Amino acid sequence: MKPIEGRKRVIIEDVKPQVDCGRYPAKRVLGDAVTVTAAVFGDGHDHVTGRLLYRHSSEKDWRSTPLSPLTNDLWSASFIADALGDWVYTLEAWVDHFDTWSDDLRKRLAAQPGQPGVSASAEPQDIPLALRSGALLLEQTATRAKGPDSKRLADQAARLLKLAKAKSDTYDYPLTDEIVALVAQYPDLTLETRYPQELHLWVDRERARYSTWYELFPRSTSPDPARHGTFADVQALLPTIAAMGFDVLYLPPIHPIGKAFRKGPNNSVTSTEDDPGSPWAIGAKEGGHKSIHAPLGTLRDFDALVAAAREHGMELALDIAYQCSPDHPWVAEHPDWFNIRPDGSIQYAENPPKKYQDIYPLNFESPDWRGLWEALRDVFLYWILRDVKIFRVDNPHTKALPFWEWCIGEIHKKYPDVIFLAEAFTRPHVMYSLAKAGFSQSYTYFTWRNTRDELRVYFEEITKPPVTDFFHPNLWPNTPDILHATLQNGGRPAFMQRVILAATLGANYGIYGPAYELGENIPAKPGSEEYLNSEKYQIRQWDRSASHSIAPLITRLNQIRRDNPALQSDGSLHFHNVDNSSILCYSKWSGQNQILVAINLDPTQEQAGWIDLDLKELAIPHNETFDIEDLLTGTHYQWHDRSNYVALRPDVMPAHIFRLLRKPNVETPLTP
Amino acid sequence: MKPIEGRKRVIIEDVKPQVDCGRYPAKRVLGDAVTVTAAVFGDGHDHVTGRLLYRHSSEKDWRSTPLSPLTNDLWSASFIADALGDWVYTLEAWVDHFDTWSDDLRKRLAAQPGQPGVSASAEPQDIPLALRSGALLLEQTATRAKGPDSKRLADQAARLLKLAKAKSDTYDYPLTDEIVALVAQYPDLTLETRYPQELHLWVDRERARYSTWYELFPRSTSPDPARHGTFADVQALLPTIAAMGFDVLYLPPIHPIGKAFRKGPNNSVTSTEDDPGSPWAIGAKEGGHKSIHAPLGTLRDFDALVAAAREHGMELALDIAYQCSPDHPWVAEHPDWFNIRPDGSIQYAENPPKKYQDIYPLNFESPDWRGLWEALRDVFLYWILRDVKIFRVDNPHTKALPFWEWCIGEIHKKYPDVIFLAEAFTRPHVMYSLAKAGFSQSYTYFTWRNTRDELRVYFEEITKPPVTDFFHPNLWPNTPDILHATLQNGGRPAFMQRVILAATLGANYGIYGPAYELGENIPAKPGSEEYLNSEKYQIRQWDRSASHSIAPLITRLNQIRRDNPALQSDGSLHFHNVDNSSILCYSKWSGQNQILVAINLDPTQEQAGWIDLDLKELAIPHNETFDIEDLLTGTHYQWHDRSNYVALRPDVMPAHIFRLLRKPNVETPLTP
Repeated sequence: MKPIEGRKRVIIEDVKPQVDCGRYPAKRVLGDAVTVTAAVFGDGHDHVTGRLLYRHSSEKDWRSTPLSPLTNDLWSASFIADALGDWVYTLEAWVDHFDTWSDDLRKRLAAQPGQPGVSASAEPQDIPLALRSGALLLEQTATRAKGPDSKRLADQAARLLKLAKAKSDTYDYPLTDEIVALVAQYPDLTLETRYPQELHLWVDRERARYSTWYELFPRSTSPDPARHGTFADVQALLPTIAAMGFDVLYLPPIHPIGKAFRKGPNNSVTSTEDDPGSPWAIGAKEGGHKSIHAPLGTLRDFDALVAAAREHGMELALDIAYQCSPDHPWVAEHPDWFNIRPDGSIQYAENPPKKYQDIYPLNFESPDWRGLWEALRDVFLYWILRDVKIFRVDNPHTKALPFWEWCIGEIHKKYPDVIFLAEAFTRPHVMYSLAKAGFSQSYTYFTWRNTRDELRVYFEEITKPPVTDFFHPNLWPNTPDILHATLQNGGRPAFMQRVILAATLGANYGIYGPAYELGENIPAKPGSEEYLNSEKYQIRQWDRSASHSIAPLITRLNQIRRDNPALQSDGSLHFHNVDNSSILCYSKWSGQNQILVAINLDPTQEQAGWIDLDLKELAIPHNETFDIEDLLTGTHYQWHDRSNYVALRPDVMPAHIFRLLRKPNVETPLTP
Repeated sequence: MKPIEGRKRVIIEDVKPQVDCGRYPAKRVLGDAVTVTAAVFGDGHDHVTGRLLYRHSSEKDWRSTPLSPLTNDLWSASFIADALGDWVYTLEAWVDHFDTWSDDLRKRLAAQPGQPGVSASAEPQDIPLALRSGALLLEQTATRAKGPDSKRLADQAARLLKLAKAKSDTYDYPLTDEIVALVAQYPDLTLETRYPQELHLWVDRERARYSTWYELFPRSTSPDPARHGTFADVQALLPTIAAMGFDVLYLPPIHPIGKAFRKGPNNSVTSTEDDPGSPWAIGAKEGGHKSIHAPLGTLRDFDALVAAAREHGMELALDIAYQCSPDHPWVAEHPDWFNIRPDGSIQYAENPPKKYQDIYPLNFESPDWRGLWEALRDVFLYWILRDVKIFRVDNPHTKALPFWEWCIGEIHKKYPDVIFLAEAFTRPHVMYSLAKAGFSQSYTYFTWRNTRDELRVYFEEITKPPVTDFFHPNLWPNTPDILHATLQNGGRPAFMQRVILAATLGANYGIYGPAYELGENIPAKPGSEEYLNSEKYQIRQWDRSASHSIAPLITRLNQIRRDNPALQSDGSLHFHNVDNSSILCYSKWSGQNQILVAINLDPTQEQAGWIDLDLKELAIPHNETFDIEDLLTGTHYQWHDRSNYVALRPDVMPAHIFRLLRKPNVETPLTP
């Protein structure tokens, strides 16, 4: 079957960014220059041109910007994402007969007999006829133009006709740049090709891409060992945490803790009246996901903590874990939201032969899935109304993926500034699918990537398109669930190494403290990644002033991150080769700001080696001498050309974080 | 907005093959096993399963085959493309509650107190309850099943209930493999996810992927220098060409040649009455694209040639060039199919300052584009009815791309066995776009890829997905338009090298003869790729029996191609490193057939070096000694492990084409 209009000769394909053929939005953050590229071409030698159409979804009319040619039929155009939320973009392109004519005419003019390099007896170039063709195109443009522009174009058409009749020996290009630009304002779109899809772009606030998280258990913040910590105790710690440079303070679930099958210390199946239980066993007779565990304080205390955090330049992030203790009010109110066993009992969490009788998972195949979805969404909305705008979602990969797409979509419609961090440690497709469904940030495999090659391969995957179009990694050297063997065995140097890696490889990173800065490293048992005497099941006391604390290093790292835009996004990450496999070297940049990190991955001894800098990536000319400053120590060095030597003692300082000090007029790379 | 059914928990994505998000069909050839892969996964730990749905577009009902798991949530299934033409495929997948239950039950059984490795005092595993869950699933399956199957399933459900009630100390897995397989026949599809797209697959006959072309000018086939060659003369040559192993005989345009602005020898703008003109200046008062140039013979002679070629195992391919001489009947009948200049004249071909006054291009923006499209399609249909099933299309990139998609689609609907070769030497996107639009084979940049690195990079691009899903390369070491400097300067060894490369790198290849086998290598002028005294503008005499002819080599190459399935497709091409950059080494395989080529690219002197075989690609164990046979000479060698030495004299034989002689029980790779 023929198309309705077969004369649309331009093809638009390979449009980027584009996530899963446009099934999901691409992601950017507020203020980003969004660059769209596409292959745009037609048949033959006619010139093509086109434009990017874009609008915030709240706008009715398209905005547009012309496409610029790159190489090999690729074109690009950019716009600034100057509002949060959902944007739409597409492209249109067409054969540009005027530009084709203009270019041909210039070639004819250059080939006129007697022109430089052209014999006086050369073939004439039919220029009067070409001028008449141009006049025709100008007349057509005039009919599309408005007001005085129309008259100007018609006048130029008349001028070209007059020139054509005048018969001259040689001709000059007859139009001014202004007229050429004017013609471009009134293209003939009759036969334009419109890209068939309207692609979506989701714009988050900057904290989705650049954030620094500190997790703590409020229960352990009391200065009095005999007393359960409270929101007020946390509030008292805010100046300390803010001074370390964190901007997100994240609390494990704050809801009433179930009593049925409550776990004792070290995940014991027996517990006493005094054991506080796991905050992830959510719900008791006092309430569920919209209630506060009474020992922590009141809703008013909570509001005060949220407000105080903001005053310290921090935001409070809540942990939302969609699972219920057997005591959760939903169990009685909505038994159909759970799996019912043949004996009528509710199915607890199981991974045969393991049983988790203190936890009831929700059933996303419930006949009342609509009611369940709404209730879960309403939990977020409840806390959003209390000014919480960041949520860390526990095990989102055990809840139906279509639920997340709907739930986050619903919330984002009204609150585009809400950030969701997916705590999913599962298979790659599932992790990526959660990010596509709407999660703003994602936990990663960073914890289990420790060697040079493991780190390099993994970070090359997660910091480049297509992954970066939908996935913002958030790196955690530890969590209450994960104390990696590297930390168990590597001592203080390992804690320094892993936090330096997290803070510089990832624009988003976080630590679970004060376990981290105090070097807590005893596992529950050999081979386990669980902490001994984990705060998940008991209250702990911490001596934040201990002399072995690496809080000063963390404070310095966070200051370096604030001062250096290069470390506030991940797309520019580039690895440089080193002749010692225990040293990892990488750079990041943003505008003129360039950071180069060299880190010894071995916690046991000094490692030294020659770095082979990729000078092109750093925009450093060959054979140049340049100044660098180690931002951890303030020491300046002069480096020369590509090969430079480093020696790093893990017990002193396992890394250099260099800022390149360059002349401002040196050519620098584009913004990633 | 919520989906209509929010309980569809399975995601299907990343389906391959898929060309431009399903905008174009993927391509395979008749008899291929078409393997479809996809990422299929859901939330949590529930098992998923699914199937591939496929049908020839002439069939109403889907056929289906179950998906098999690969790694990391990837699944695949295959079907045999056992008919030419348009196929459709998609996938469906669902949570498999029965399989999840079955797997859980096995874990419970293994964890029963007293089982191997399990203490007698271990926690009981609630097996009776699990059996009741299984009975429920079997009952549900029974309601979906038909006839006796339904009863069998219901009986099993009852059996499980009875076992559950009996209370035993230990239990065994209660179902036979037959019952498990029976359950799989009646899946619960209520909550299945269907991939939203139905993807298309185009199935060509095998010659689209494996063909051997010989191009000649019929005008030059007369044994009498005083006489214009005829179809009858060509017919007389068929045994010779067939004996060389070619299966496609391709003729430049056979239509009446225009007289207006006829070109003389060497593209001279002046010509005499005796000059035959260029066959690409199509159309005279005797007729256009459906007529035959009278000096070649009659339509009956043509029919006889087509039939005789088939008798020799060859097919005739016609060159269809959509452009007109000023004498073409269409010029008078349909002036609106051409560009009209402001003075009322028809625009001839131009690339300012160059003029091609003997050629009028067609105007694909004609108001009568519908009439034009139909006329062009009808040219193909006319020759198809004369039993021509292969067309080489001249400069398709200067005709509107949407036209090709429609035209080839229309023809393929009725004649799926027609093969179109695109003669486009233009930018990559345009070349690929023609293949996506429907061209079965494509000319390539092979002619301009001569060094080891040029060849390797280019062939790694065009022989791997995504390109192989829509693009079948056809390699030409020369054409009447292209005599590359490598041939001009390299003498006989260069002609040997380039044809060996073409015949072994490309399952489709062709030569323009007898210029090729006779080593014709004088350019029209220095720096030009045109032949001196080109047959395009004059009749030539050739001495096919000349002793320097490389026809014997070409004959041997074509025989090797026929005997070795490895050389009949391109997807298995793999390069092996050599420590001498003048030697290129690569392998291809199909089933048990393995071919390894080592070729000296230097026409001037012997080159020798150590090949570093990729043993894994060749499925050769480390440290093995294996036999290889050089199919060009019949010589046998014993090679050992990965490092093996070759020395190649270009004047004698620039290449080895080895067949690996392996024990049949050695593990061999899968079919590409």
